[in-house]
Amino acid sequence: MEFKINNEFLSQLEELIKQNNAQEVKNLLHEVHYADMAEILEELDLQEAIYVFNSLDSEITAEILLELDDDLRINILKNLSAKEIAEEIDELDTDDATDIIAELPQHKKEQVISELEDVEHAKDIVELLRFDEDTAGGLMGKELVKVNMNWTVLTCVKEMRQQAENVTRVHSIYVVDDEDRLKGRLSLKDLLTSSTKTPISEVYIKKVTSVKVDTPNTEVARIMQKYDLEAIPVVDEMGRLVGRITIDDILDVIKEEADKDYQMAAGISQDVEADDSIFDLTKARLPWLVLALLGGFISVKVLGFFDGAMHNHKELFFFTPLIAAMAGNVGVQSSAIIVQGLANNSLSGTVWERLLKEVSLSLLNGLILGLILFIGSHFLLNVDIKTGITVTTALLSVIIIASLVGTFIPMILHKNNIDPALATGPFITTSNDIFGILIYFSIAKLILGF
Amino acid sequence: MEFKINNEFLSQLEELIKQNNAQEVKNLLHEVHYADMAEILEELDLQEAIYVFNSLDSEITAEILLELDDDLRINILKNLSAKEIAEEIDELDTDDATDIIAELPQHKKEQVISELEDVEHAKDIVELLRFDEDTAGGLMGKELVKVNMNWTVLTCVKEMRQQAENVTRVHSIYVVDDEDRLKGRLSLKDLLTSSTKTPISEVYIKKVTSVKVDTPNTEVARIMQKYDLEAIPVVDEMGRLVGRITIDDILDVIKEEADKDYQMAAGISQDVEADDSIFDLTKARLPWLVLALLGGFISVKVLGFFDGAMHNHKELFFFTPLIAAMAGNVGVQSSAIIVQGLANNSLSGTVWERLLKEVSLSLLNGLILGLILFIGSHFLLNVDIKTGITVTTALLSVIIIASLVGTFIPMILHKNNIDPALATGPFITTSNDIFGILIYFSIAKLILGF
Repeated sequence: MEFKINNEFLSQLEELIKQNNAQEVKNLLHEVHYADMAEILEELDLQEAIYVFNSLDSEITAEILLELDDDLRINILKNLSAKEIAEEIDELDTDDATDIIAELPQHKKEQVISELEDVEHAKDIVELLRFDEDTAGGLMGKELVKVNMNWTVLTCVKEMRQQAENVTRVHSIYVVDDEDRLKGRLSLKDLLTSSTKTPISEVYIKKVTSVKVDTPNTEVARIMQKYDLEAIPVVDEMGRLVGRITIDDILDVIKEEADKDYQMAAGISQDVEADDSIFDLTKARLPWLVLALLGGFISVKVLGFFDGAMHNHKELFFFTPLIAAMAGNVGVQSSAIIVQGLANNSLSGTVWERLLKEVSLSLLNGLILGLILFIGSHFLLNVDIKTGITVTTALLSVIIIASLVGTFIPMILHKNNIDPALATGPFITTSNDIFGILIYFSIAKLILGF
Repeated sequence: MEFKINNEFLSQLEELIKQNNAQEVKNLLHEVHYADMAEILEELDLQEAIYVFNSLDSEITAEILLELDDDLRINILKNLSAKEIAEEIDELDTDDATDIIAELPQHKKEQVISELEDVEHAKDIVELLRFDEDTAGGLMGKELVKVNMNWTVLTCVKEMRQQAENVTRVHSIYVVDDEDRLKGRLSLKDLLTSSTKTPISEVYIKKVTSVKVDTPNTEVARIMQKYDLEAIPVVDEMGRLVGRITIDDILDVIKEEADKDYQMAAGISQDVEADDSIFDLTKARLPWLVLALLGGFISVKVLGFFDGAMHNHKELFFFTPLIAAMAGNVGVQSSAIIVQGLANNSLSGTVWERLLKEVSLSLLNGLILGLILFIGSHFLLNVDIKTGITVTTALLSVIIIASLVGTFIPMILHKNNIDPALATGPFITTSNDIFGILIYFSIAKLILGF
């Protein structure tokens, strides 16, 4: 069912481009879905991609634009005139149109808007451009079907047919009062199953979940997931229906959030992909590495401070990477669980309960791991009992402290409205490395007395 | 718009339960959405939750069941008779019903199925139970609206009204031939805007994306996302329409996949939440920690092997955690980018291109970090130039090798049909720790000659 790009197809296409045969390019791509076309364009070089783009109807190219990677989209748009872009925009729903216009440089933005044919569409886009892109207002589109609660079903159906012309997918029919305030909804099923004579006020469902224009997008995502909604109406400060958000946009929000948290945990500070440029990848990766390196400087200093142990207890230094690694791993586990709990809004109980739980958990894990280390250090690594006791005690302490740091730093960040995902990855491993080494040698000094 | 659980509400509810006042419990919860009720039940103890559950109508409790955490659902189901469970199941769509029945122990499963009132429903569920839960067949439900391509629109609308009675949300109207083979679809918009006299064969859309019953669920998710679908029809080996998958189930698949990859990267081997028991959390966390500990044993051995350096170059040992940490961090970054690229199916180019890119990237990062280390080691950490050159050279080599390991291990796993996410987190940090230390001291031995 799905189209698979193959080299044969690509060389055929490239040949047609070389022959400057726009009609045949169009024919070749006739049956191809726009999402697949976007993938094809990614495989071509920019000039070829622009040629293909110009060979196709704006109805299709508008959809392709939405599917392209940001870089290629920006490059293609640079090569189109304001009038050409306006033709694409005219084909798009207001929310998608706004996303594309928002990416344009200021002067081109205004030119494109002035070239739009449909004035109502242009007005909607200008309105949507006002909203912060990370809020419900920034996600919503204006295309929706709404009916007045004072109408009869007959008027309603007539009006709806007209409105539906502008709406690609009818998710819900919203019911408003004379002031346009959201009052409820009509389900499509009701529409299919109830007779046209019924008055609206009798059939509409009074309960409707909505969000405000300034609700954050992650909150919209949470609400739509929780209540299993495929579309949600957006109201303004006066409760007036101003737009709707559909599930496909929420899917993008969820994916972006998950990708961002994942990349944060891996020490990548910007949204990048494997195919981005070396420069972009370096920009995303280097900051955390520099931080980790500076953390490393501190660990060098800390170890230097304990160099008195070199003479009689050199084997202590062989265990530093082990202790540091365990501290890092335990810390990342704890912080990941908290970050996910915060993201899913599923953390319950008081701070003290969480503290008690984390200590019990790390005590249990630490005792098991400590036992393995104690036995292993004696039989596999041949260190004396006293050193074995030292490293085991240190491991246990380090595990407990690392898991507390991993648990509470994200919680504190979250409480101060900072993204808790910041406290995962290199941040937690680096700080736990330093703490771990410090605790380890302090305990060693206490037990072995150097 | 959203219901917020507060302590006052909870104590009011608990008081009513204590008074054994089922009617008032029902009244109190009358206006509450089932997703919120699930959250309320999570706050109560099991006996209270079961009391509330029994006070409500099965129409509502069936929906609540779906929203509950696995543990509580299993506990509640244990306390219900087969007949009571069958009443819940009768209220649910076939896909949800199947998910719940699949969780029951074998003997209870059969009892519940034999107690189902609607025989057609029971047949559908028995059919769905055959499919692997990680395939399209395991995700699909039987509720859909389908029309025969040979009908007129008039017959069609009549038939649809009847079918729509059993379908909560009408996503798409599927068009089949006399053999039930999927031929196309009718959009709801067409339904709203075209006259009832038009023949089906003239209005239906011949292009329809479908999946097979054995398509993996992650592949279904990718296709639905790519083509922006809110529902997708499922066909059997003969191309017959056997079910449909809706976007809400795909949302769960996407979230689960993202959570799983995230947890893997953090060294958590099972799907757990912060509120799970200490035993479950230990089961999920301990295996990776044991692996990391055993890796630590190896690093102790490796360091012991180089203990000749202790006499004249003790400061080398101060740098081991720094080198090991940098190796771990670089490796995790590389593997995370590859794992995401594989998940999104967005990796392009040959293996050699990727190798070249990764080497260039790590060379660039390594040179910048090496410069910082060289300057820092001299001015901040006061080591001599020769040691400075040693640690800098080691850092550069370690960064290049760690990024290659991080890039290619997930790719190799993927090629062998093993989940590449396995190669993130503790696995990559531990192996890079060991490699890093080995490379570091080998280079030091070469330069400083101990």
